[in-house]
Amino acid sequence: MTATAAAPHVVVVPDSFKGSLSAREVADAVCAGVRVAAPDARITCLAMADGGEGTLDALLSTWRTEVRAVETVDAIGRPTTARWAASPDGRVGVVELAEASGLPRVSDRTLQPLRAHTRGTGDLAAAVLDAGVEEVLVCLGGSASTDGGAGLLTGLGARLLDADGAEVPDGGEGLARVASLDLSGLHPRAREVRWRVAVDVTNPLVGEQGAAAVFGPQKGARPGDVAFLDEALTCWANLLERETGVRVHELPGAGAAGGVPAALVAVLGAGLEHGATLVAETVGLPAALADAALVLTGEGSFDSQSVRGKVADGVARLAAASPARPPVVVLAGQVLLPAPQARAAGIAAAFSIAPGPIDLEDLLGRTAARLTDLATSVTGLVLAARPA
Amino acid sequence: MTATAAAPHVVVVPDSFKGSLSAREVADAVCAGVRVAAPDARITCLAMADGGEGTLDALLSTWRTEVRAVETVDAIGRPTTARWAASPDGRVGVVELAEASGLPRVSDRTLQPLRAHTRGTGDLAAAVLDAGVEEVLVCLGGSASTDGGAGLLTGLGARLLDADGAEVPDGGEGLARVASLDLSGLHPRAREVRWRVAVDVTNPLVGEQGAAAVFGPQKGARPGDVAFLDEALTCWANLLERETGVRVHELPGAGAAGGVPAALVAVLGAGLEHGATLVAETVGLPAALADAALVLTGEGSFDSQSVRGKVADGVARLAAASPARPPVVVLAGQVLLPAPQARAAGIAAAFSIAPGPIDLEDLLGRTAARLTDLATSVTGLVLAARPA
Repeated sequence: MTATAAAPHVVVVPDSFKGSLSAREVADAVCAGVRVAAPDARITCLAMADGGEGTLDALLSTWRTEVRAVETVDAIGRPTTARWAASPDGRVGVVELAEASGLPRVSDRTLQPLRAHTRGTGDLAAAVLDAGVEEVLVCLGGSASTDGGAGLLTGLGARLLDADGAEVPDGGEGLARVASLDLSGLHPRAREVRWRVAVDVTNPLVGEQGAAAVFGPQKGARPGDVAFLDEALTCWANLLERETGVRVHELPGAGAAGGVPAALVAVLGAGLEHGATLVAETVGLPAALADAALVLTGEGSFDSQSVRGKVADGVARLAAASPARPPVVVLAGQVLLPAPQARAAGIAAAFSIAPGPIDLEDLLGRTAARLTDLATSVTGLVLAARPA
Repeated sequence: MTATAAAPHVVVVPDSFKGSLSAREVADAVCAGVRVAAPDARITCLAMADGGEGTLDALLSTWRTEVRAVETVDAIGRPTTARWAASPDGRVGVVELAEASGLPRVSDRTLQPLRAHTRGTGDLAAAVLDAGVEEVLVCLGGSASTDGGAGLLTGLGARLLDADGAEVPDGGEGLARVASLDLSGLHPRAREVRWRVAVDVTNPLVGEQGAAAVFGPQKGARPGDVAFLDEALTCWANLLERETGVRVHELPGAGAAGGVPAALVAVLGAGLEHGATLVAETVGLPAALADAALVLTGEGSFDSQSVRGKVADGVARLAAASPARPPVVVLAGQVLLPAPQARAAGIAAAFSIAPGPIDLEDLLGRTAARLTDLATSVTGLVLAARPA
């Protein structure tokens, strides 16, 4: 068979299988299976992510652009190298918080919940601005700090001053002492570009559901630290409101990544967006869906979280909004969400790669092969169900 | 939604999940799932079987006719009750060899490979003829005997005589001594009806691939017994050829069930047929497939055997021959056959009910619920892929 104008278009856009395969490896395995069932199909193969950790790698593999790197500091100030990515046209730069300021980078040391900061991510963002991008996509998740994004601002050239005009220390502990914000040294392009922040939580900056209370403990904050950090974030938000006129205390999503969105929104006019949808738009998924006959996505575990802001959810939302309204099928290591609930969320079907009774270790060793086989089955079935 | 003329037609025709659910229980679980995804669908729900053991139960549940029963003898002559079924119109009678003459019925005793016989099945067949059927469907499989169908003939009134005119003993041991066949007492309707024999093996009656050599050992035959039985079957085939002019020595399938087809073919003009296809025709599957949008079948293990004469194979053959050419999907406890081989055999897709890593016992406890969920997914996907 040869490709014809009527050849079906299959779109493959999986997330990674955490602990097993990257999104690119999943996508490649699935595409191989699609080809077996539909040798003449047009296949769009995009590695996806939900806007959190792993988004940079997914975008790099989809764009096939070279990785850029910057020498900067980690969340406790030690030298480190952080990567970033530019879109093929150079218009979009991607900054993943976990690259410089992530918790895994500092987990070799006792956690420092009051001192950890995001200055390294600010350095990284400055390098991205230097490269001339028009838009910065900020991916959160995996942060070690609760600094309200203050470090990110200082990395970009801002100065946070106490009542005596001295710079406050990095980290949440300095926030309560900030009396004024000096933006005179801010990177000249910082307020020219569009900042888009991928968030997958709706927590506000402060309070019982805020950054310190909900995410502080996993960064090492004890109860006393949580109370201190919540108070520090409140002072910071008060200052930001006074200096910029923008109130971020209760903004849904501002509590992500130790409050980084607070600074980005108030000072740089950033927009907070549904992470998976933002990434999907960034890789051009809406255009790919326009004439799709089938959309295959996937993730390690398809469960109730999957349809609340994860990749499958983002893909399903965009597919439902596309004129072709292609069926979305999830291929997963395990399927925990009942079919009726998946259908209600716009997922036509979800299938596990498990071929029968099998233990986790065996299945992990066969993930790629099973993905290929399952993709062949699903593609063959969907094409058989379509009119000739 | 209400039913419309365009409501899709879904055909559900599973085999049993051996050791877990009967074909009817599987069919009911699958139909429940279809209804969730397609409340307005027309559903044809047929319990299927491959023509071997379990076929009687599947046909009874599909026809919803009353079970008939006959007092007869088991494979070693002890009193037993054997069931049979008539089609709703009374035209077809179903005789399952394992009912009277099955190995499980005599497994409480030391196996008697030379003496075990099929006379009880002959009694049963005589009762079926008495009821006035026009066609007898003989289901083989699970036999305890290697008697070339001699017992079945005697149960129907034939006499097997030795050189002195005395009746030979039942079982394979008597076959070598048969000098003539007295059919004067044969049931008057035995040669009026159509005998259709479901076979799922192609073994000849005698020789290295014959009934004694291949299936004798599992019935308790030691090497010396096998040689004796093979010689006895050869004598029997010689006699049948002399008496009827029909040669069955090498007939493919004549080696099934200890050679029962030999007598049925030579004396009663029976036809040997692909078991699963024969059962499918008997339950009216070809007519149901004519406008089907989707065919769901299933079995405990979908493997290389499945596409060689089992239910999935029979269903796929008939679906391929139907004008609608509906996609056939297998739902299975485990899927061992790679998708490309399934596709080559006319199976669009096969999915396991395993939701992820899981052990056998857990999965057995969730079989029905998982079948329902999986059927919802598959039906939803197929209907989503069809034009609106």
